[in-house]
Amino acid sequence: MVQPLEIQLERCKVKKIKPPQNQLGFGVYFTDHMFIMDYSLEKGWYQPRVVPYQPIVLDPSAKIFHYGQTVFEGLKAYRTEDGRTLLFRPQKNIQRMNRSNERLSIPQLNEKVVLEALELLISADQDWIPTEPGTSLYIRPFVFAVQPALGVSPSTHYQFVIIMSPVGAYYPEGVNPVKIFVESEFVRAVIGGVGEAKTAGNYAAGLNAQENAKKQGYSQVLWLDGIHKRYIEEVGSMNVFFKIKGTVYTPSLNGSILDGITRSSIIQLLTHWNIPVVEKVISIEEVYEAGKDGSLEEAFGTGTAAVISPIGELSWQDDKLVIQNGLIGELSQRLYDALTGIQKGVNSDPFGWMVELDLTP
Amino acid sequence: MVQPLEIQLERCKVKKIKPPQNQLGFGVYFTDHMFIMDYSLEKGWYQPRVVPYQPIVLDPSAKIFHYGQTVFEGLKAYRTEDGRTLLFRPQKNIQRMNRSNERLSIPQLNEKVVLEALELLISADQDWIPTEPGTSLYIRPFVFAVQPALGVSPSTHYQFVIIMSPVGAYYPEGVNPVKIFVESEFVRAVIGGVGEAKTAGNYAAGLNAQENAKKQGYSQVLWLDGIHKRYIEEVGSMNVFFKIKGTVYTPSLNGSILDGITRSSIIQLLTHWNIPVVEKVISIEEVYEAGKDGSLEEAFGTGTAAVISPIGELSWQDDKLVIQNGLIGELSQRLYDALTGIQKGVNSDPFGWMVELDLTP
Repeated sequence: MVQPLEIQLERCKVKKIKPPQNQLGFGVYFTDHMFIMDYSLEKGWYQPRVVPYQPIVLDPSAKIFHYGQTVFEGLKAYRTEDGRTLLFRPQKNIQRMNRSNERLSIPQLNEKVVLEALELLISADQDWIPTEPGTSLYIRPFVFAVQPALGVSPSTHYQFVIIMSPVGAYYPEGVNPVKIFVESEFVRAVIGGVGEAKTAGNYAAGLNAQENAKKQGYSQVLWLDGIHKRYIEEVGSMNVFFKIKGTVYTPSLNGSILDGITRSSIIQLLTHWNIPVVEKVISIEEVYEAGKDGSLEEAFGTGTAAVISPIGELSWQDDKLVIQNGLIGELSQRLYDALTGIQKGVNSDPFGWMVELDLTP
Repeated sequence: MVQPLEIQLERCKVKKIKPPQNQLGFGVYFTDHMFIMDYSLEKGWYQPRVVPYQPIVLDPSAKIFHYGQTVFEGLKAYRTEDGRTLLFRPQKNIQRMNRSNERLSIPQLNEKVVLEALELLISADQDWIPTEPGTSLYIRPFVFAVQPALGVSPSTHYQFVIIMSPVGAYYPEGVNPVKIFVESEFVRAVIGGVGEAKTAGNYAAGLNAQENAKKQGYSQVLWLDGIHKRYIEEVGSMNVFFKIKGTVYTPSLNGSILDGITRSSIIQLLTHWNIPVVEKVISIEEVYEAGKDGSLEEAFGTGTAAVISPIGELSWQDDKLVIQNGLIGELSQRLYDALTGIQKGVNSDPFGWMVELDLTP
């Protein structure tokens, strides 16, 4: 039986000065409070608490520094025009976090406790939820191994933390298509590895390729599979979709691709709109053929940060492919408007995705 | 031009009580001091210092927690019977660390500064170097991203730290062969990934398989390649060797295997002894065939912690293969004695591997 845990609240003495809403950026400013909960083999999860935003203090031998046993999530809270506060499918994040935890030998979190933690933390920092168009409060739960020991084995102690950052409009001047470099040398993940888990090592593995792409004028990398270097996996840290002859395709979840929550929402929206959507193995050749014969109509990435990120150009082995004349496609725009509309509480929410928070003053 | 850096030394006020040398274990106890050096894009590496062993204090948004941008090393200092202090091939560790850093988009370290840091730190904690047979002082240099920002990109700030732990005899009752589970589902690394780098994510990825193996009575996992699940890569966190009909084989470095310093020393020793040694692609079928027809004479792992770890049994897809009747082979024992003899300053050092430290009192 799961013990009910009462979350303690210690309010900060002095509030930080808030940055202007048109200069937020992404993950640069953090709110006044954070959530912390500890774990030991003996006690399980204990002492859940909302405390003033403060440094994490770790022994230098803590396993997080050496063996990367850690998992994170990312989700957003939105302030509606009529003053309500909405979370986008938070249970999906907590459930995915637990799947990632399973893969990384990290103990499971209690879904209800995490939801309560989110509510209490957001309550404490509700004046940090930005209101300008395109802004939101980005929420970063993460869990990491803190046992001070260098043996390579799962940690006996963990810390689960939630921090929050007001983030700006991803596209302050309207949704702009990006140029993407198709990576043929470096690999992000392989079947049997940890690609499906939202764990630090996957992101570390991608930094080098991303930097190379940037030097050549591309904003992100399109990852191919680690076995054949042929089948499309993800773009940067987003899932990817291609519209070919009226049908929308996205790589099927194979264990090395992140099971994106925006991805599954897009699939649900398209199905609801009676637009054919197919999850399948997609080769880069297929996409290039469709691009050359004119049947590739749109391509876009999906993720929590940008929601929809249209792809205006691909470059694969020096072969450039311009998509939709480098402009945003009709369907990309429709999906962006629909999803952000639901998230901001402007559109109706036919799927019951949004969770309205009951914020105490 | 590299700036000469003067290393500051702040001694601890109170020394810790040292654990008994027969109860050291591995990476459980830490010495009185540690080395720290900071990096920023503007300043490069700065403020190298030996300070009392102390917690690391990080903003919760520090990139190490989220994107795993970190690299580590492991090496040992030995106290000889005549009171000298020796390091085993430390330059190799620093050079490998810089190769790992390159892969992880972490700035290069100055080899000379790191060597000086090792010497000063070991000087400060020289009374921690254990003297009992099989013991040594394990040294853990590591570097990690500390920039407080959630954007996925290489950090602008890093910390480089060295901690040290007196470690016990890996085999207190003599070198004992281990039982190894050949992993057919999970994958440690793939070509194009970060398998060659000594980075946290590789170890996190292996925890699950290691736990499964332990539950079935095996002490480590033998990793197969991520593409064909057929070619042998590493065993646990060691490199692996097989002696078949008098010739010693080890998997060739392919980018997903760690370039082990013990591995390269073993190859050099075997060559010196005129024992044929071949680096090649080795399939698990090949090893099993040699095992079944009696030509597989010995198998062993190599690494800093155990030096030589004989393999007494393999289990691959429910097919068990006992090697050398589960006992340590003649060559494994000879290699173990030779290498540990050189490391402890008992044997002569024909290759100039050992670096004698000039310890100030």
